[in-house]
Amino acid sequence: MKVDGRHFRTIWVEPDGWSIGAIDQRRLPHEFVIARMTSCDEAADAISSMLVRGAPLIGATAAYGVALAMRSDASDAALARACDALSATRPTAINLKWACDEMRKALSTLPPSARAAAAYVRAREIAEEDIAINQGIGQHGVELIATIAARKKPGERVNVLTHCNAGWLATVDWGTATAPIYTAHDQGVGVHVWVDETRPRNQGASLTAWELAHHGVPHTVIPDNTGGHLMQHGMVDLVIVGTDRVTANGDVCNKIGTYLKALAARDNGVPFYVALPSPTIDFSVNDGLRQIPIEQRSPEEVATMTGRTADGRIETVRIVPEGSPVANYGFDVTPARLVSGLITERGVLQSDREALASAFPERAGD
Amino acid sequence: MKVDGRHFRTIWVEPDGWSIGAIDQRRLPHEFVIARMTSCDEAADAISSMLVRGAPLIGATAAYGVALAMRSDASDAALARACDALSATRPTAINLKWACDEMRKALSTLPPSARAAAAYVRAREIAEEDIAINQGIGQHGVELIATIAARKKPGERVNVLTHCNAGWLATVDWGTATAPIYTAHDQGVGVHVWVDETRPRNQGASLTAWELAHHGVPHTVIPDNTGGHLMQHGMVDLVIVGTDRVTANGDVCNKIGTYLKALAARDNGVPFYVALPSPTIDFSVNDGLRQIPIEQRSPEEVATMTGRTADGRIETVRIVPEGSPVANYGFDVTPARLVSGLITERGVLQSDREALASAFPERAGD
Repeated sequence: MKVDGRHFRTIWVEPDGWSIGAIDQRRLPHEFVIARMTSCDEAADAISSMLVRGAPLIGATAAYGVALAMRSDASDAALARACDALSATRPTAINLKWACDEMRKALSTLPPSARAAAAYVRAREIAEEDIAINQGIGQHGVELIATIAARKKPGERVNVLTHCNAGWLATVDWGTATAPIYTAHDQGVGVHVWVDETRPRNQGASLTAWELAHHGVPHTVIPDNTGGHLMQHGMVDLVIVGTDRVTANGDVCNKIGTYLKALAARDNGVPFYVALPSPTIDFSVNDGLRQIPIEQRSPEEVATMTGRTADGRIETVRIVPEGSPVANYGFDVTPARLVSGLITERGVLQSDREALASAFPERAGD
Repeated sequence: MKVDGRHFRTIWVEPDGWSIGAIDQRRLPHEFVIARMTSCDEAADAISSMLVRGAPLIGATAAYGVALAMRSDASDAALARACDALSATRPTAINLKWACDEMRKALSTLPPSARAAAAYVRAREIAEEDIAINQGIGQHGVELIATIAARKKPGERVNVLTHCNAGWLATVDWGTATAPIYTAHDQGVGVHVWVDETRPRNQGASLTAWELAHHGVPHTVIPDNTGGHLMQHGMVDLVIVGTDRVTANGDVCNKIGTYLKALAARDNGVPFYVALPSPTIDFSVNDGLRQIPIEQRSPEEVATMTGRTADGRIETVRIVPEGSPVANYGFDVTPARLVSGLITERGVLQSDREALASAFPERAGD
């Protein structure tokens, strides 16, 4: 997608042919800084420090991290060490483990002398596959938007509400929840996005608003408290969110607060869609509420806020009284009954076991 | 309630017998500062600058503002001028208009020489009436908490979730939503409060957490996104919120985001109560969603955040990208169907027209 009119991906091979460039997402929205990774350690640090984040992008970064490792030492031991180190950076991200497994499969049977070149090929494929999946999500999801647009009066825009950042910054390009939005916008369908701020880490205000602004998509940032009121007053046509894990029966684990928007959507007859690349489906889990452990993160994420002062300094301020305890649950689970449909690269599916298993038969036996 | 072990109200007559002291709520939770008002203009400024806030406290401040005006000039013209100036400070707060009308009624038939003394008497009555109403809410509401406590195992606490600040800082003392909580705590009933941060102005994190901490009530600050997840996992026993206006049929207008918590409560079988002093009932309005205009406030409240840096400076930082539009709706309406009960000074009522009219027959014809 575009940044200041120029096309960017979140991660790429630099013109030198081997080092890896990436957008430093810790600095957004206040500064646009490119980071350069030259070793597996730097790639692992980029993931653990959240220089890169978003499950698909983490997977691609890990793949390139293995390639960087193979450049300096392509032994079996080095391959194992690289995959173990990268897998350990953020143990809950599904795509991270998947990408390391893919790299291991692609390289372990090759002679060490062939591994570095093959690693770059496979890492590039993983990045391209992510883009292709997201474009597929965009092609299927744009039909939902176009159908609503066809019912609108001339000049009226389709209002989409989204939560957190499931945008191109969370992937290699296009994003998941944003893929239908960018596709609609690029096709000339009038679309406007309500961007949930997404406390406590503010990925909506910091990242989604930033990327929509740079690509020229009309949008408005709102506190997480606002979506219900907007839906009560007919100001939201559909909700599209991303997900960190979808269970075999269609329960959706996503950023904390997603469930509240799903409830408001149902109460007001607003369609609630979840965009997901198929690697996000976990066919081994059946009951999202009982079986998915919910990560509890640092209280500091809630108690402090970082931003830019009027005179341009980046400062972190405390907003909760000293001594008041804080709880910080990272995700919640939206039961399948509240989900209107799952937008995948193979089409828009009902959020139930049969639809998921028949669309992805090769994975349903996992 | 207590601050550092000492009892405070939010507003009082100073030992000099005439000037008015109040807690400067703009400085909380980072600094505890007492402001002194010596003129009607200073009282009006205190309201408009939000040195004091919360509908009942605004009413009491206006009443004392009239008393300060009468000290220097007790003419009919001065009385009219004071009431007009105070009423104009925050035109939407119901209690403000009510308090000015009360003062006018009490003073206009007196000779000017008797007005200043009578004004202090009536202002003090208005403050005391607010406390008595809130104590009544506490007495009725504590039964709801005690009933749940009786079902708990020894040592288990009753978990109450609240949104925004309907605490003692919003009133003269006790608060509305917090009155049952403080009453339970003071009676030795184990209670723990989930405090919604309440974006964008953070009244939960800034004020509710501060006042609960100072009175020694166990509590935990959570992002507004969190309550649904907690209810799904049985971690909330009941919700108690305040309100800015309740319609004749029981619809509840309150801080933006309240509706989302009411939906989550219903979806999980958690009782959802609203605490209100009877002056908050608006018998002239029947349909909250269609008839109550929702204030849109400054985008800066969403786009910036103020807090304390690690080295003790108070700073304001921008958290939304420059150029991204922001919407800031102040309130939403929770339909009566989602409300388990209305906790008033005359008992816990069903949220419907008949219950409200029969509990407050003298007001139902308004």
